[in-house]
Amino acid sequence: MYVYDEDIINARLNEIKNDFINCYENTFACYAGKAFLIKYMAELVKNSGLGLDVVSGGELMTALKANFPAEKIEMHGNAKSADEILLGVKSGVGRFIVDNPDELKILSEISRANNFTANILLRVSPAVNAHTHSHIATGHKNSKFGFPAEGEMLNDAVKFSMNDANINLTGLHFHVGSQLFDPIDHIQGLEKIIKVILRLKRDLDFTTQELNFGGGLGAVKNPNLKSVALKNFVSPLMEILERECKVHNLLRPKAIIEPGRWIISEAGIMLYTVENVKYLPEIIYVAVNGGMADNPRIALYGAEYDAININNLNGNSMTVKNNNIPVSIVGRCCESGDILIERSNLNEARRGDVIAIYNTGAYTFSMAGNYNKLLRPAVVFVKNGEAKLKVERQTYEELLNGEL
Amino acid sequence: MYVYDEDIINARLNEIKNDFINCYENTFACYAGKAFLIKYMAELVKNSGLGLDVVSGGELMTALKANFPAEKIEMHGNAKSADEILLGVKSGVGRFIVDNPDELKILSEISRANNFTANILLRVSPAVNAHTHSHIATGHKNSKFGFPAEGEMLNDAVKFSMNDANINLTGLHFHVGSQLFDPIDHIQGLEKIIKVILRLKRDLDFTTQELNFGGGLGAVKNPNLKSVALKNFVSPLMEILERECKVHNLLRPKAIIEPGRWIISEAGIMLYTVENVKYLPEIIYVAVNGGMADNPRIALYGAEYDAININNLNGNSMTVKNNNIPVSIVGRCCESGDILIERSNLNEARRGDVIAIYNTGAYTFSMAGNYNKLLRPAVVFVKNGEAKLKVERQTYEELLNGEL
Repeated sequence: MYVYDEDIINARLNEIKNDFINCYENTFACYAGKAFLIKYMAELVKNSGLGLDVVSGGELMTALKANFPAEKIEMHGNAKSADEILLGVKSGVGRFIVDNPDELKILSEISRANNFTANILLRVSPAVNAHTHSHIATGHKNSKFGFPAEGEMLNDAVKFSMNDANINLTGLHFHVGSQLFDPIDHIQGLEKIIKVILRLKRDLDFTTQELNFGGGLGAVKNPNLKSVALKNFVSPLMEILERECKVHNLLRPKAIIEPGRWIISEAGIMLYTVENVKYLPEIIYVAVNGGMADNPRIALYGAEYDAININNLNGNSMTVKNNNIPVSIVGRCCESGDILIERSNLNEARRGDVIAIYNTGAYTFSMAGNYNKLLRPAVVFVKNGEAKLKVERQTYEELLNGEL
Repeated sequence: MYVYDEDIINARLNEIKNDFINCYENTFACYAGKAFLIKYMAELVKNSGLGLDVVSGGELMTALKANFPAEKIEMHGNAKSADEILLGVKSGVGRFIVDNPDELKILSEISRANNFTANILLRVSPAVNAHTHSHIATGHKNSKFGFPAEGEMLNDAVKFSMNDANINLTGLHFHVGSQLFDPIDHIQGLEKIIKVILRLKRDLDFTTQELNFGGGLGAVKNPNLKSVALKNFVSPLMEILERECKVHNLLRPKAIIEPGRWIISEAGIMLYTVENVKYLPEIIYVAVNGGMADNPRIALYGAEYDAININNLNGNSMTVKNNNIPVSIVGRCCESGDILIERSNLNEARRGDVIAIYNTGAYTFSMAGNYNKLLRPAVVFVKNGEAKLKVERQTYEELLNGEL
């Protein structure tokens, strides 16, 4: 079961308002829905007044079904289909973050055919090697995302946009990577983007009115660790941006951020039931009723988590009690890679115990699948001591949906 | 879109009958459904007369809905829940492959409560280091799967079973790993298991009537490569088994195999549409309308595939035509790890082209998820030039199933 603490989510949304939106003029922030998106989550974001970043027609539809205001939606993606662009145009999404020349052309055509003017940002790849897992570094040289900061491709897109009646190019977007704890990569990215802004001003007389810093703020793995403070990221970035704009006599563009994981990861825990405990001579396996189907991040990135045994909160460490034999919490999928936590310091566990894995709110439900035809767990939100079921556990019948 | 060639599936099922079932007396084979299971696939296996290996209640339900005979179903899994065991007992599955002592106890209790006698095999971990990716090596020492070949845990389970009126222990199961091209690991596993069989005979007077070799046969990545011949695996195994049984004056147990990937991988292709092509100075990206959500094997294991451009079968290699710049086929998920093929030798491609990725029949549909809220593609079976839609493409509405 995925369990979310609504107060933690709201605290993060408020931190964005207090330490960013209300601290600096001309700013905006979107929640990056790819980290976790259901209609109820979209409603919480809507109620906070922030915007939403979606990466597909599916995420856009989820937001629209929650009556999320379309003008506060930013539509991302490195390979948007024509159908999705049309859906974005017809819904009137606030910004398209355009990734590549083909997309710009299609967006122009679809906008023209629908008498629509698309507000767009061009995604720029800043050629920064972020300090994170290679799978979630996105702003490096040769990244699949965006227009290279240098070279003609970006200039051509800006020129195309400036001359296209159905395209309103408001500025640029960059994103250096995910799960970052230090703003150094963002700062490096911003410095490169400022050079781009200056070049576009000088060469094309293009004024960057909006600059989207992306997301990428990290989440810690248990509640005893200090969370990343938003201001540690946004303060140096805003300082550099304002200083450089002043020095170069530039309009300071509207600054936009898009955190996802940072808002939702630490608000979530996952609950598993222990199905069996296997004592081998060199290792103890605690096997639970879930695994890589509901949280593939360990198998994909070697993500690290911490767990507690809800049924034995004050007991002894299982490893210590068993002559320092390591304890692994493993999933039930039929492959050895399905390990949830290696060398866990879980307290003594046995069949039937419920364990909680901390800070699993991001990229778990959203990345989940039905491998081994396991059922998607339920999603529960908790507030003021009250639990609200928001997504029902999948049924066997639903597994066969669509079979003819 | 997932596309399956029914003739290739049937050819593999026939190869099992011709080169194993009909070649040796007292044999049986199951299709390992975890590789790919829909009701129609269960029907094809049923029509072939072979059995089915399932690893969860979800796979069991799929088989039962296809009227698969329960007595030909083997129920696997390292963390079966009590509910799933009950479902297996009530359906009368032919064999439970018992993984651990806790499971054996629960199965006994549930069987007794339901006046059922469960036929079981005990899964034994043969301590073989298979020559494959660590995530899909399963029979090594300290594996999460099964009873260690040595030590008291297995002996205790055999004794427990022999004394339990509701448990009929027919033999042993082992599985060394997946995606193997040489029978050397299986042979090593079998040699270790024969020692176990001898020990159980000597110490407990237990006669192993059935021996399940597991699966693990590899699949090649394109049709120009020579497929693994089943007999190259089963011939040496059967020779060793028969010889050793004769030498040691043992009953030669019924021999069972469980191929999954080998039956289905090479029967499947996946079709993607090119959404855009991005020419960077050092790399060309061909971005398609799918990716790690529908085939996570590259991100998980670095699986390698080959692709062709259906719209340009006789054209030039894109790399060669572009000064040997490498071409990567990338997915549309918002992470850099979503690459389908690095350094592909795809022919010149452009937006709108359809590309086919070969031999994607196994662990693609079955491992798929809705990351980025992408829709699960359709599944089509092809036979005699006719295409039959077997699973409809998911709809946006279905993404919201279960939300309250």
